[in-house]
Amino acid sequence: MTVEEQVLKIGADAKAASRKLAKLSTRKKNAILEAMAEELDAQRAFIQSENEKDLEAGRAAGLTPAMLDRLELTDARIDSMIKGLRDVAVLNDPVGHEISTWNRPNGLEIHKRRVPIGVIGIIFESRPNVTCDAAALCFKTSNTVILRGGKEAIHSNLAIASAMQKGGEAKGMPANAIQLIPTTDREAVRVMSQMTAYLDLIIPRGGEGLIRAVMEMAHVPVIKHYTGVCHTYVDASANLSMALRISENAKCQRPGVCNAMETLLVHKDIAAEFLPAMGEILEKRHVEMRGDEATCKLIGSAVPATEEDWRTEYVDLILSIRVVDDVNAAVEHINTYGSGHSDAIVSEDDKATVTFLNEVDSATVYVNASTRFTDGAEFGMGAEIGVSTDKLHARGPMGLEELTTYKFVIEGKGQIRE
Amino acid sequence: MTVEEQVLKIGADAKAASRKLAKLSTRKKNAILEAMAEELDAQRAFIQSENEKDLEAGRAAGLTPAMLDRLELTDARIDSMIKGLRDVAVLNDPVGHEISTWNRPNGLEIHKRRVPIGVIGIIFESRPNVTCDAAALCFKTSNTVILRGGKEAIHSNLAIASAMQKGGEAKGMPANAIQLIPTTDREAVRVMSQMTAYLDLIIPRGGEGLIRAVMEMAHVPVIKHYTGVCHTYVDASANLSMALRISENAKCQRPGVCNAMETLLVHKDIAAEFLPAMGEILEKRHVEMRGDEATCKLIGSAVPATEEDWRTEYVDLILSIRVVDDVNAAVEHINTYGSGHSDAIVSEDDKATVTFLNEVDSATVYVNASTRFTDGAEFGMGAEIGVSTDKLHARGPMGLEELTTYKFVIEGKGQIRE
Repeated sequence: MTVEEQVLKIGADAKAASRKLAKLSTRKKNAILEAMAEELDAQRAFIQSENEKDLEAGRAAGLTPAMLDRLELTDARIDSMIKGLRDVAVLNDPVGHEISTWNRPNGLEIHKRRVPIGVIGIIFESRPNVTCDAAALCFKTSNTVILRGGKEAIHSNLAIASAMQKGGEAKGMPANAIQLIPTTDREAVRVMSQMTAYLDLIIPRGGEGLIRAVMEMAHVPVIKHYTGVCHTYVDASANLSMALRISENAKCQRPGVCNAMETLLVHKDIAAEFLPAMGEILEKRHVEMRGDEATCKLIGSAVPATEEDWRTEYVDLILSIRVVDDVNAAVEHINTYGSGHSDAIVSEDDKATVTFLNEVDSATVYVNASTRFTDGAEFGMGAEIGVSTDKLHARGPMGLEELTTYKFVIEGKGQIRE
Repeated sequence: MTVEEQVLKIGADAKAASRKLAKLSTRKKNAILEAMAEELDAQRAFIQSENEKDLEAGRAAGLTPAMLDRLELTDARIDSMIKGLRDVAVLNDPVGHEISTWNRPNGLEIHKRRVPIGVIGIIFESRPNVTCDAAALCFKTSNTVILRGGKEAIHSNLAIASAMQKGGEAKGMPANAIQLIPTTDREAVRVMSQMTAYLDLIIPRGGEGLIRAVMEMAHVPVIKHYTGVCHTYVDASANLSMALRISENAKCQRPGVCNAMETLLVHKDIAAEFLPAMGEILEKRHVEMRGDEATCKLIGSAVPATEEDWRTEYVDLILSIRVVDDVNAAVEHINTYGSGHSDAIVSEDDKATVTFLNEVDSATVYVNASTRFTDGAEFGMGAEIGVSTDKLHARGPMGLEELTTYKFVIEGKGQIRE
C-alpha cells in the first residue's frame, strides 16, 4: 500500500467507526475512559521501554536537552496521562445537550441539539502525552480521532495508542475509534489535510512552521492554534504596583508558553516613573529587554528593538517594550503586531479600559489581570484541546463543547410548505 | 494596478474600515440601513438602466430565458430589496450580546461576548439582489463586506452597491464598509480566497462548480453552501396519506431550490401500497421518476436509476426512488449519497424515528414534515445568508448570529497566576 492508500483507509475506517461511536451512552464512554486509564497503568513498563527507543534515537540524532525532556515519559508523566483520562471521564458530556428549543406558528417544534463533529485529525509534534490527552477529549465528545505525531516520538505514540485501544475495546469501544498513523512519512500529512471525504476538522498542534504547512495544503477545515504574541498595556491611570506585579507574572511565571507576555506597552505619561522600576525587576529575573528609543533612555540595559521584534513570539526570557501616546496607540499596535491571542490593560480609568476591551481584536482581553490565565482549566472548562487563534467555530480556549457541532431536529405533524 | 494589487487594496481598506464599523451603535446602523433603502428607491431608474445593459449583453451572449429572468431587476425585485433592508433594520442586533458570564474562585469575571467576525467575502453568481441582501446582513452584524458577483450582472451589481454606499455614507457609514470588486477577471477570486491577512471568512453562494473552485484555492476559512441532495424516507409505520402529501410538497412545491427532495426512500413492507399512489400524483405533476428495480415494477412510468442518480441534485422535476429494507438501510443510503442538508422520515413508530433523527448526519432532520422548511425565515431567524452544509462554526440556516464570533472579556483586580 502507498502512504496515500494507507491514510485513506484509516480515514474510511474512522468515518465508519464514527457512526458506531455516536451510539454510545455517556456512562459507557466514561467506563471506557476508566478502562483506558487502567490499561495505560498496566502497560507502563512497555510504554517506557518503547519511549526509551525514541530517546535513544533522539540522543543519536543530537536533539537538544529541552527536546529530549519533552520526549521523555517519566512515571510522573504517565501518572498525569492516567489522571487526565479520569478527569475527562468526570466532565459533563456536551453531546445530546439541547442548546435551544422553540415552536413555530405552524406547530413545528425545532430543537437545536449538540452532536459530535465526526472525524477529527490531530497533527502534533514531539510531546507523546498529546496522543492520550487529545484522544481522550475527542472520544468523550463521540468524535473518532486520527492522530499524527512527530517522527521522534513514534514508538511512544504507538505504545500509548495501542494501550488505549486495547483497554477501550475490551469495554466496548468500536474498533478504529482512536487511530494513530503508523508511518512517519510526511506525505501522510498532505493526504490527511486533503481527505475531505473522511475528515471533518484538523487541529494542528505545534510550531508555526507545522501550522502554516497544514494551512497551505488543507482542504479540510483547520482550527489554528497559532502563536501568542501577547501584550500588556500599562495605562496612565494604572495602579503602578499592580502593573509591576502583573507584568512580571505575565513575562516570567512561565515564559515558554503561548499566553506569556511578549511585548509591554507603556503610556508616555507614566513611563519615566514606571519603566525604571520595571527594568530593575526584569533584570533580576534575567529578562533581556528590547525597547524603542524612549524605553532605552529609561532602562540602561535595554537594547534597541527592531520592527521584527514587535511581531516575535520569543517564548523565552526576552521582552519587547514600547512607549505609546495613549490607549488608542496601544490598540493600534496590538491589532497590527499581535496574534489575536491574549492582551491585557492595567488601568483605573473606565474610558480607556472600555476602549481597550472593545477594540483589541483578540480572543481574550483582560483588564487588571495577567494574560497567563488564558487556559481551559483556569477558565473552568475542565480540559482543553488548545487555544484557538481563529475566529470561526471556536475562539480562545477550546474545551469539550468546542469539539461538538449541532443539528436541527424538527418534529412535525404532517406540515407542508404553502 | 494589477488585479492582485487592486484586490489587496480593497482587502486592506475593508480591514481598516472594520475597526471603524465596530464602533457604530445599533441605532446608528439601523438608521444607515433605512438611508440605504431610500437611496435604492431614489436610484431605481438608474439601477434599471444599468440592469438593461447586463440584460442586453446577456441576450447577445445567448443566455437562456431562465438565466435572463434571474438577472432582471423588475420593480417588484427592487421593492423586495428595499423591504429586505428595512426588515434587517428591525431584527435584533446580536453584536455585544453576552453569551455567558461567570466568576472564577480567584475573583476573575469572565464574559463571553458576541463580536463581529471582521471582514467577510461573498462570492456569488448571477442574481444581482444578492449584492443588497448579503451586504445588509454583514453590515447589521458590523462586518465589512467584499462582494464579488458574476460578470453577467456587473453593471447591476455596481449600481446597487454604489446606491448603498451613497445612502449609507451620507448617514455616517464608514467608507469601504461595503465594497464590490469592480473587475470581472477571475484572478480576483483567487486573490480573495488567499488573502488571509485581510479576510476572515468567505461564503461562496452559487453552483457546485463555483464552491469547489473556491474551496480548492482557499486559505481563508470558507463556509460552504453546497448542494441539497435531500431525502424523504417513508417508514412501514407511516400514515400513508401524510406521506403522499409531504413527498409531493417536498418535490413539487418549488423544485429549483436546495431544500427540495431529490430522492424518495420507501420501506419494502408498504412499497406495494404506497408507490403506485405516489407515482400517480407525481405523474400528474409532470415529475420524471428514476427508480431501482422494485420501484420500476410498481410504477410503470419510472425508468431505471443509475448510481449517479442517487448523488444528483436535480433542482428540477425529476425524482430518484428506492425501496429499502428498513430504517437502518435508509440511514445508510442517506449518509452515503446525501449532502448533509435536510432529510425527513414519515413515521408513526418512535423507535424508527429516533434512529433516523439521531443517526442521519445532516444539518436538519425532520419527522413528519416537508424538507422545504429548511430556511432562515421559516425557522424564525428573520433573515438568512444561506444554508451551511458545513459542520464548523455554523450548520443549517445561517442568520445574523451566525455572522458573529465571540471574545472573552476578563475583569480582574490585579490577579496573577501562581
